[in-house]
Amino acid sequence: MYGVILAGGSGTRFWPLSREEYPKQLLKIFGNQSLIQATLARIADLIPLNQTYIVTNPAQAEQIKFQLPPSAEGPRFISEPIGRNTAAAIALAAIQLRKKFQDGVMVVLSADHFIREPQAFIKALQLGEALANEGYLVTLGAKPTRPETGYGYIQKGKPFASQPNASTVQRFVEKPNRETAEQYLKKDDYFWNTGIFLWRVSTILAEIERFLPELSEGLKEVDRKLGTDQEGEALGRIYPKLPSISIDYAVLEKSDRLAVIPTDMGWEDVGSWSALDEVIERDGDGNILTGNVVNIESQNSIIYGDKRVIAVVGLKDIVVADTDDATLICAKSKAQEVKKVVAALKLRNGDEHRIHRTVIRAWGTYTVLEEGRDYKIKRIMVNPRSKLSLQMHHKRSEHWVVVSGTARVTCGESVYTIQANQSTFVPMGVKHRLENPTDEPLQIIEVQSGNYLGEDDIVRYQDDYGRVEAKKG
Amino acid sequence: MYGVILAGGSGTRFWPLSREEYPKQLLKIFGNQSLIQATLARIADLIPLNQTYIVTNPAQAEQIKFQLPPSAEGPRFISEPIGRNTAAAIALAAIQLRKKFQDGVMVVLSADHFIREPQAFIKALQLGEALANEGYLVTLGAKPTRPETGYGYIQKGKPFASQPNASTVQRFVEKPNRETAEQYLKKDDYFWNTGIFLWRVSTILAEIERFLPELSEGLKEVDRKLGTDQEGEALGRIYPKLPSISIDYAVLEKSDRLAVIPTDMGWEDVGSWSALDEVIERDGDGNILTGNVVNIESQNSIIYGDKRVIAVVGLKDIVVADTDDATLICAKSKAQEVKKVVAALKLRNGDEHRIHRTVIRAWGTYTVLEEGRDYKIKRIMVNPRSKLSLQMHHKRSEHWVVVSGTARVTCGESVYTIQANQSTFVPMGVKHRLENPTDEPLQIIEVQSGNYLGEDDIVRYQDDYGRVEAKKG
Repeated sequence: MYGVILAGGSGTRFWPLSREEYPKQLLKIFGNQSLIQATLARIADLIPLNQTYIVTNPAQAEQIKFQLPPSAEGPRFISEPIGRNTAAAIALAAIQLRKKFQDGVMVVLSADHFIREPQAFIKALQLGEALANEGYLVTLGAKPTRPETGYGYIQKGKPFASQPNASTVQRFVEKPNRETAEQYLKKDDYFWNTGIFLWRVSTILAEIERFLPELSEGLKEVDRKLGTDQEGEALGRIYPKLPSISIDYAVLEKSDRLAVIPTDMGWEDVGSWSALDEVIERDGDGNILTGNVVNIESQNSIIYGDKRVIAVVGLKDIVVADTDDATLICAKSKAQEVKKVVAALKLRNGDEHRIHRTVIRAWGTYTVLEEGRDYKIKRIMVNPRSKLSLQMHHKRSEHWVVVSGTARVTCGESVYTIQANQSTFVPMGVKHRLENPTDEPLQIIEVQSGNYLGEDDIVRYQDDYGRVEAKKG
Repeated sequence: MYGVILAGGSGTRFWPLSREEYPKQLLKIFGNQSLIQATLARIADLIPLNQTYIVTNPAQAEQIKFQLPPSAEGPRFISEPIGRNTAAAIALAAIQLRKKFQDGVMVVLSADHFIREPQAFIKALQLGEALANEGYLVTLGAKPTRPETGYGYIQKGKPFASQPNASTVQRFVEKPNRETAEQYLKKDDYFWNTGIFLWRVSTILAEIERFLPELSEGLKEVDRKLGTDQEGEALGRIYPKLPSISIDYAVLEKSDRLAVIPTDMGWEDVGSWSALDEVIERDGDGNILTGNVVNIESQNSIIYGDKRVIAVVGLKDIVVADTDDATLICAKSKAQEVKKVVAALKLRNGDEHRIHRTVIRAWGTYTVLEEGRDYKIKRIMVNPRSKLSLQMHHKRSEHWVVVSGTARVTCGESVYTIQANQSTFVPMGVKHRLENPTDEPLQIIEVQSGNYLGEDDIVRYQDDYGRVEAKKG
């Protein structure tokens, strides 16, 4: 069995915690694990990590890698040049699996679901595997616990004689209105469509060819070039032209090979800030409070503070989410509208929709503490035994003050070591490199001076992470 | 005529914009002028600045001075060692005026009122001066425009024969409930008690002696020592023991020499965040929005953003006020409860109730950009031709990077000049001084290193502002 995790995401729904380059699945909303870490952990007993594939774009793949244990083998990444909805992502994963393994059962998962009962989930996957091997397109259903209007539904048909815990599918239903959702809740044959699927690679590819031939046709050239040095070029050229449609709409609503496995696994698609109410325990006043929060008589509110003081007084049904550079305050009933904020920010000349003040890199992190006219201040953390690229800036000089740890500095022809409470100066136009030669983290404060301070003013000469003349950071 | 401006304030009601050391009257809530600047400007045509006295504590006096034009003469400051309500503050001002001028009319004003029609206010003061000279205790009344339950009221009596625009006082009424306030609004003989008073120095001192003899008695020793080098000591010893009571309650509700001048001057006591609705023009959705705000469909809300992005979605009747280190989100109807936030913060080990991240000093400002383990980063702005004290720290060293302007640095025995993009290092235990010798502002980034970084680790040897061994900063 192979795991295929769909991990795109535009970072809009949980803004400002999520950003374009730091989407929801990377967030540790529920505790110590991010959503994608939890997704991987849930299937780990059933599917080896090196048989798990994550479909995402390159920038997000890099961020996901930072959350994986460094020594483990896999998961593998399947790179989408652009998001084209689930049918294209699933087809791309399927042709890759066919090339490598001929056939087998693939489990399609989202990177950002919540599942309260992982054991029930595992049992459903095991049952689904058996049905998939019989040629079915299997969807996991979740027993509704409220009249949710934000999910699609599946009406089950007759139970299978051989598998009484699974049924044929009567029909797929799109998101209902409130009244209809309340009717579904009363009946016992409607289930939430979790978007978790199992099928054989050969089955889904055959069904896609039958119901969405443009997609099959479009991927044929990519298929031929898989594993060659032309794969990337072909994918980049062809993928953006593929039909952008969901697998539900393109295939599942039309196929006659459907099965549904009703489950009680406590599944939720954490689709917006207000959805946290369904998955996180609330306090006696109905609040979810984390971070540096002072609360005076608020009710049914979700307050995600960080380091700064967030004081809330007499709020009802409000979401507050604070980050270094942006704070959201949103009526809970309007949580779906947060994407309008992100759209508005995109039109501005800022970074608040795209990245956090703290940016994670392979060698560590940097945080922009302040930008002013002609200067920028960063806190730079360099991981033990890591180094930034050998680089040069045309338009800025840099002062480095070590606040903890030991730095090995290359500046022009000199190589020297500085420690906490020592500083150095890198003039404009001089090749330089910052390195942490120790087993302890290195922390420096960088004061940049110059009249252009963009991240793109960088020439790389050597890099441990293959970024020579490739990308910024 | 003498102006006496009562300018105490604990900085709680407009937190986080106001702080204990930066109270409401210093805020520029309405535009370019702070409340106290506006107060001074309103009376400037009637009372010379050097006949205006501001009663406040020393820390607030320092901050008020930074908002005064540097060359002007006055206003004078009367220092309260501790706030003891209006009767004591007025009595203290009165004995000082008596000592200096024997007698005369004093106008008592608050530092943080809003007056929409300054011409009507001036006319009322002129009329009040005449009545005060006849021996009356004159209060300005404001015609109610809504059934306000947050103000006290005055019921007027018969108009004076000689002054038909003024009346005797039937009675003072404390803050009414809603129903009573609505009745007052319908009648034409009830006015808001503005707390703006006019009386002769001799009249008010006589009335205080009559109705509040403990206060008169207590101030006698202070009176004797006024102008001597024992004044401060006597005041510090006696003032905290004086009765803490309002002039309204102690004198005005009992006196038989009362007059009220009804006005249409558009007066408001800006007592809490929600009061801004009465004094600032709202947009078509009833909102007041300032700063870096992204608003999606909010109504009747007050959003004070600053530099960071504040995104508000679907809010109704909410106040948001953002500062560098703290953000308030408050139901408008609970604006009076903000003081509970300040009380909660006082119990913590932080500064958010007391000062802003940016602290104003006589020589310029400093802003704490970040504090970490063993380091602190400040942006320091030094005003043209200003210098910090010659000082030394026992427990920290400092790196200075100039980002704009020119710095003259004293470090040990050396004196040298550094410019934008140059840096210097001040070792622990070495005497040093930072100075701006030019006519342009100087801006530096200071990185402090050490295992104790409190503002009180400072030894001052020479200071332009008299702070040698006096206070921190």
